[in-house]
Amino acid sequence: MAKVEIIPLGGIGEFGMNCMGVRYGDEMIIIDAGMGFPEETPFGVDICIPNFDFLEEYRDDLTAIILTHGHEDHIGSLAYILRKFNLPVYSSRFTLALTEKRLGEFDMLDDVLLHRVEANDVVSIGSFKVEFIHASHSLVECFSLAIHTPVGTIIHTGDYKIDDTPVIGKPYDLKTLGRIGDDGVLALLCDSTNATVPGRTPSEMAVIPAFEEIFEETEGRLIISTFSSSLHRLQIVFDVAHQFGRKVCVIGRSMQKNVEIADEQGLLQIPHGTMIDLSTSRALDDDEICYLVTGSQGEMRAALWNMATSTFKGIEVEKGDTVVLSARIIPGNEKNISRLIGHLYKRGANIIEEKRRLVHVSGHASQEDIKIMVETARPRYVVPIHGEYRMLFRQKEFIKNHVGNYSDDDIILIENGNVLEIDEYAAKIVDRHELHKTFIDEESMEEIEYDIVRERKKLAYGGAISLVVTVDKRLHKIAGEPQITFQGVAGLDELHSFGKQARDAVSAAIGDMKPEQIADRKVFKENLRIHLKRFVQRELSSKPVIVTTVVEV
Amino acid sequence: MAKVEIIPLGGIGEFGMNCMGVRYGDEMIIIDAGMGFPEETPFGVDICIPNFDFLEEYRDDLTAIILTHGHEDHIGSLAYILRKFNLPVYSSRFTLALTEKRLGEFDMLDDVLLHRVEANDVVSIGSFKVEFIHASHSLVECFSLAIHTPVGTIIHTGDYKIDDTPVIGKPYDLKTLGRIGDDGVLALLCDSTNATVPGRTPSEMAVIPAFEEIFEETEGRLIISTFSSSLHRLQIVFDVAHQFGRKVCVIGRSMQKNVEIADEQGLLQIPHGTMIDLSTSRALDDDEICYLVTGSQGEMRAALWNMATSTFKGIEVEKGDTVVLSARIIPGNEKNISRLIGHLYKRGANIIEEKRRLVHVSGHASQEDIKIMVETARPRYVVPIHGEYRMLFRQKEFIKNHVGNYSDDDIILIENGNVLEIDEYAAKIVDRHELHKTFIDEESMEEIEYDIVRERKKLAYGGAISLVVTVDKRLHKIAGEPQITFQGVAGLDELHSFGKQARDAVSAAIGDMKPEQIADRKVFKENLRIHLKRFVQRELSSKPVIVTTVVEV
Repeated sequence: MAKVEIIPLGGIGEFGMNCMGVRYGDEMIIIDAGMGFPEETPFGVDICIPNFDFLEEYRDDLTAIILTHGHEDHIGSLAYILRKFNLPVYSSRFTLALTEKRLGEFDMLDDVLLHRVEANDVVSIGSFKVEFIHASHSLVECFSLAIHTPVGTIIHTGDYKIDDTPVIGKPYDLKTLGRIGDDGVLALLCDSTNATVPGRTPSEMAVIPAFEEIFEETEGRLIISTFSSSLHRLQIVFDVAHQFGRKVCVIGRSMQKNVEIADEQGLLQIPHGTMIDLSTSRALDDDEICYLVTGSQGEMRAALWNMATSTFKGIEVEKGDTVVLSARIIPGNEKNISRLIGHLYKRGANIIEEKRRLVHVSGHASQEDIKIMVETARPRYVVPIHGEYRMLFRQKEFIKNHVGNYSDDDIILIENGNVLEIDEYAAKIVDRHELHKTFIDEESMEEIEYDIVRERKKLAYGGAISLVVTVDKRLHKIAGEPQITFQGVAGLDELHSFGKQARDAVSAAIGDMKPEQIADRKVFKENLRIHLKRFVQRELSSKPVIVTTVVEV
Repeated sequence: MAKVEIIPLGGIGEFGMNCMGVRYGDEMIIIDAGMGFPEETPFGVDICIPNFDFLEEYRDDLTAIILTHGHEDHIGSLAYILRKFNLPVYSSRFTLALTEKRLGEFDMLDDVLLHRVEANDVVSIGSFKVEFIHASHSLVECFSLAIHTPVGTIIHTGDYKIDDTPVIGKPYDLKTLGRIGDDGVLALLCDSTNATVPGRTPSEMAVIPAFEEIFEETEGRLIISTFSSSLHRLQIVFDVAHQFGRKVCVIGRSMQKNVEIADEQGLLQIPHGTMIDLSTSRALDDDEICYLVTGSQGEMRAALWNMATSTFKGIEVEKGDTVVLSARIIPGNEKNISRLIGHLYKRGANIIEEKRRLVHVSGHASQEDIKIMVETARPRYVVPIHGEYRMLFRQKEFIKNHVGNYSDDDIILIENGNVLEIDEYAAKIVDRHELHKTFIDEESMEEIEYDIVRERKKLAYGGAISLVVTVDKRLHKIAGEPQITFQGVAGLDELHSFGKQARDAVSAAIGDMKPEQIADRKVFKENLRIHLKRFVQRELSSKPVIVTTVVEV
């Protein structure tokens, strides 16, 4: 009998870059197409995306892409997958609006079929029936998915929290989830991002008291930084600002764009006259203004960094300003954020961080939310997704120890590139592919081969030497002095004569070669490279990349 | 009247690389010579040290180096400063033993004068009288310093915690500190590392119950990872292992070395027969062994990483092992540690982290310890040191709000390169030098110019192109085809013909040049570079470093 296959391309064992294939027979749908942030940023690599080439073997099976919500780690690689596989895309109105913005930048809007769906819609895609369940999260119009297949129902939670009192929209739709649970769920693919966090994740509402206090007690300017997509948070800031008689000025391109879209779609309710532009803000007194800015992660190109280090569109942080960092620290950004805070302190700002006051809540399910999820859906199997390995493992451990009826064999840990085969009798990894991520070149925004990144790493580590040797093509003898150029090679400054020594060493090496060693250009070049490499390593303890060019005269 | 100058070279506004000059008249002593970990590691730069060239202007004034304790961020650049300035070094027996190890690697032992001091010693160095105060910390034989000058007494806390019940040695010597406080203290230079942490830092003893529980309940092998210098912790592991009938095998070079030195000096009391070597450990049952290993920060070359990812001297982590991470996360190491934990989980190990159980305490003063320090020393001024800016600012804020009698003007925030002039009437920054840190090349272990690192950054970002052009030196015309080699340049694979196109473009550009433009080689080379650069940028959206060589025939 047929089985369902779960094939993650990203988001398992890592933060971000979420992408998952669900296959039945010769049909396969893709859930999310996200991007991630690689550690290779010094090498001109901005973002990474799943290795979509891996899908080539499934080309004929692919039927659709479904986006759970509009965060970049779920939609950021959509343009790249659509270029290779022109598939229809299904998602909410708001998610599609964000998507259109991105596809527009790639000039791809005309070629793509976008299907707008709403919560409780059930869409038939071949043998799959995909049911969209309203999910609460830090963003709006998010879905969990119930993917009904002939073998059984797979629930993909997307990113979620069980928020009973969200600021925008309805609570997590546990009722629908429970009804689907009643009918039987084969597997639950469940967000693990906060699986190490005990208790319940507080509602988006939970930050309101802290914001009210801050607006109440602050006399100078207020500068609030949060994720540009955290619409609940933005709504709260607009509301509390209105309540305390401050105007709100939004700074930072992504936040302005998101506010614009959400306002158009009626998702944000901005109190009349509360939002003002930059030039209007300048005319206001300090206690009449609240800036809502990007850059909570210490990003050097974002508004807050610029306001903290110099001037940004004429606005800079000054003594007496209060800066609220209303966001969590995304792992890897610790140092940049610490540096940002240092700059803010130096300017004399008062800083309110998440750790000291409740100005941020997570958008992800904590352990007790996960318990509610599992107990409501009552799946045969649980498959932890979205997170580093420690989170996946901790979710497994938590469910095993704190939710009834789940043993080791019922909670399946998978990795990117695994093929997990499921039916009601068994869940088994039947294939394991080694999936390297795909890097995107920062300048061209195109995919970049890993070999190129590897070459850049070598250049970065030891610099480069260009060696040019001229040979007489009839005599197979050197003609004139070798030319050597150094880039990023250490130790030269202490030995000004090193260039000459190296030239002499190369000349001597060539002098020792037989004409037939020089005649074979390939062997000759490689010999030259090795000679110079050894010389440099011995003299400078340095390992540069050496590029040899032979000119024939 | 004369004043004292405080001149920090490192450790202010950053974690690590601690170094501070204290000057009176034409005499200057240096407190600590530490190293730091730069973000430039992808560029072949392992460590960074203070910019000691800055001390050239004080060369005739320098009289001594005093080391507060033996952590690398306080002694790691000693060899580099001693090379430039051969000064006598003062510290405790244990610190000097660690120092000798490092100086031996640089073959400098014969040239250096090391003075051993003990707590309560007062050493006269010119006009300074330096009093060594016993300090508790995660290491042993640590000092706070009371530097008595004709203008008044400066206290430098070093790294410290107020530990009333350390495992090794005596509690922090508050009595001596109080006596010095009675006599009057001009300024307190005070460790800020934990200035964001409320309450008291728990005693080193505090982890014993958790370790006893872990040893009690663990049936498989125990693998405990901590900092190799955390001697209190090592002592606890030896003691508890002995108590529960396990043998201890130390793995990792730095930890073995530290245990050896501390054992020789009678600082560690290893219960007879408890320490065994690796081969003996293999013969033991799982419940008879405890491995004490390096690598708690996820360092890829350390014992734990190797045991977690493959095999290390025949030992690897297996299902059933319990791994205790008995260390804090040093900022910047979050991702590596998370990856390490992922590997450990995948191997089926049970992992005990600091967050989940009290298996680690800090070696640094928390807010209430800082309060005790300030109230005991009662200085005229407080100068926060050791920490990122946020910590320095938070120390100031805490003292201002929670310790009596200190206002804004009494707590002085400084930066590396500042010259802070102090006497009883005022504390004032009278000079500000921009101090760039000095990088150490990973291969040669020598200083590397910042320009070289900058070149490596450029190479890393866009790769490199070598362009070789041959010209007829009489005719000032191109002779033969240009040769172009690419390293780490993105976008080539999609355009196999790009090499030819680029050659043609260069040839055409040369064809358009006048003979006199070719005759001036410098202008010619620069023109070629710019031409090729523009062509590559237009065609590939890429920004490689371009090296041109002209061969004359």
